[in-house]
Amino acid sequence: MTPFQFALLNTDPQSAARRGRIRTSRGDIETPIFMPVGTQATVKGMLPEGLKDIGAQIILANTYHLFLRPGHERVRRFGGLHRFMNWDRPILTDSGGFQVFSLGELRRITEEGVVFQSHLDGSRHLLSPELSVAVQQALGADIIMAFDECIPYPATREYVLHSTERSTRWALRCKQALGEEAQQALFGIVQGGMHADLRRLSSDQLQEIGFDGYAVGGLSVGEEAEVMYEAMDFTLPLLPQDRPRYVMGVGTPENLIEGIYRGVDMFDCVMPTRNARNGVLFTSFGKISIKQARYQDDDQPIDPACGCYVCRNYSRGYLRHLYQSGEILASVLNTHHNLHYYLDLMAQVRQAIEEGSFSQFRRQFHRQRQAQTKSTEE
Amino acid sequence: MTPFQFALLNTDPQSAARRGRIRTSRGDIETPIFMPVGTQATVKGMLPEGLKDIGAQIILANTYHLFLRPGHERVRRFGGLHRFMNWDRPILTDSGGFQVFSLGELRRITEEGVVFQSHLDGSRHLLSPELSVAVQQALGADIIMAFDECIPYPATREYVLHSTERSTRWALRCKQALGEEAQQALFGIVQGGMHADLRRLSSDQLQEIGFDGYAVGGLSVGEEAEVMYEAMDFTLPLLPQDRPRYVMGVGTPENLIEGIYRGVDMFDCVMPTRNARNGVLFTSFGKISIKQARYQDDDQPIDPACGCYVCRNYSRGYLRHLYQSGEILASVLNTHHNLHYYLDLMAQVRQAIEEGSFSQFRRQFHRQRQAQTKSTEE
Repeated sequence: MTPFQFALLNTDPQSAARRGRIRTSRGDIETPIFMPVGTQATVKGMLPEGLKDIGAQIILANTYHLFLRPGHERVRRFGGLHRFMNWDRPILTDSGGFQVFSLGELRRITEEGVVFQSHLDGSRHLLSPELSVAVQQALGADIIMAFDECIPYPATREYVLHSTERSTRWALRCKQALGEEAQQALFGIVQGGMHADLRRLSSDQLQEIGFDGYAVGGLSVGEEAEVMYEAMDFTLPLLPQDRPRYVMGVGTPENLIEGIYRGVDMFDCVMPTRNARNGVLFTSFGKISIKQARYQDDDQPIDPACGCYVCRNYSRGYLRHLYQSGEILASVLNTHHNLHYYLDLMAQVRQAIEEGSFSQFRRQFHRQRQAQTKSTEE
Repeated sequence: MTPFQFALLNTDPQSAARRGRIRTSRGDIETPIFMPVGTQATVKGMLPEGLKDIGAQIILANTYHLFLRPGHERVRRFGGLHRFMNWDRPILTDSGGFQVFSLGELRRITEEGVVFQSHLDGSRHLLSPELSVAVQQALGADIIMAFDECIPYPATREYVLHSTERSTRWALRCKQALGEEAQQALFGIVQGGMHADLRRLSSDQLQEIGFDGYAVGGLSVGEEAEVMYEAMDFTLPLLPQDRPRYVMGVGTPENLIEGIYRGVDMFDCVMPTRNARNGVLFTSFGKISIKQARYQDDDQPIDPACGCYVCRNYSRGYLRHLYQSGEILASVLNTHHNLHYYLDLMAQVRQAIEEGSFSQFRRQFHRQRQAQTKSTEE
């Protein structure tokens, strides 16, 4: 089995942007990378072959959902998540923390872990750092995440400090639970809210424990984009150069470009897949809503500059018809296009960093969108 | 443009089963054939490439639905249905008659046609033989159907006679509307209910007008299978040998085998696609319902004897999980398997007829299902 490795290949001369490569036993991951979300052991509307066609190198699956249904022990009996869902490239699983903390009234936090009620049947469970690791081991992902609290925004400084230190203790318990003979890479998650000193505290404590990679948690939780970028500004430089850096749950194409500019290597978000199912499509000139009547007679592809399967074969008018008719193929084609957009954007970014032209690329990217915003406002 | 042609290649020595070939400008159709239903310009859950992978040679689309949404003139402006939906093999459109007659209270029949209210927005329309042909011309299908009434079952003999004669007059108007320079093949539809003499009357009248193919309508409308087979028994021999014969809206795999035994060449039905979305899967040993708990730990494919993409790559346990989780991929994979089952069954039938072993094939087919029924009852 190839051990987990990260190689830094290029750094942008004018920004913190990095070009890297993560080596896993299931293949390499070229960074910066976006990971499509496959919550319930399927990226909604995509066949594994379709994901490969658009260049997906790694996908994410959710521990919380798979723990409840079909159950991690069942997935283990099926030979693990890769075999269960017919995906032989790398998988990252989250810790389940984000979902149980999102349950609101249905959960209670103790030092031991989080007691929560299933959103499916109301059954009670205790999710602890040890159980999170056990579930992620049963699922068999290539990269697993430490169990932490994703701190809501806004929160008092006192709460952020208290929660961040508890997340550190939980991260240590995760590492101990995984053991010395770990077959999986374990990432720690830096918390600390929007406070620079608490982000430093979290980062220092986690690095003392030592992880294969470092995530930045607690972003994209309702704060303004500028607050997120500021938090990235003071958090990313705290992280070691020789480990992959992952910003969880982010975000829009603009967020990705800005994250990469600040040194982020990995992203995941439901945005391209969920938007697709709602008829919102990403293009080189911004977002469009395919349900609008203006597209009903439009024979152009979604994005004339896009070379994806959908843009090569289908018109906006047809996609609008499928959406209006509630057809499965609407979700299938829209998802294919949106994920292609995100993955192709990452491929363009990687090339720009290699060529030392990322800053130019970033300026051009924002310019195109401002032109679009203006022309829409007119 | 290749004119529409039908060649009878083989006939079974022990039954009325036939092996034929329909030639169209968009390719050949080997009969007996099953046509997947693509009501709203998409076979629900299938990409065109997936349909080709499983050997779909022709699909069906519904005039009623496309007339209302997105509108036939719009489809024409997009270059016709083939281009609109990215399907370059033959398409057959129905006349819209079946759907408007199904509207019950929302429609009124006159000699001119049927006044009906849209199920989408309540708008009023008159669908006449002439409009049905105009719509089907705009859609640009390779085979179009005469506008007729699909007579409900049961019905009085008086009603059946009255309706059947009106359908003949409508069929004549369809042929006249299509004109001499027709680019599309037009099929007449034999009605006459469950009365042998009225089926003969309908068949004689239609053949006097002359059509490129003949359909048998008014079956699979709630009657027992034996009544359907009896109607096939006295109707199929009335049809000319040198034209394709199509039984509309039929049916189960058993119905197809029995129809072929009686000389049918073409079938369509929503059964494989609709059942798939409800988790009901066809196998060589009968139907299974993938939602049952008995499959949750089952690592076998749907049908160990099946070679389709789904059976090569996914377990019953995974498919059960997808279904229970309400995932799009459940519909996508189940539909792929069920349509493969239907199309593969037709491929096996064609080979059996070529080899002169269809009667054997039919006995074996029914034996396997009886064994399954018994073992399920135990």
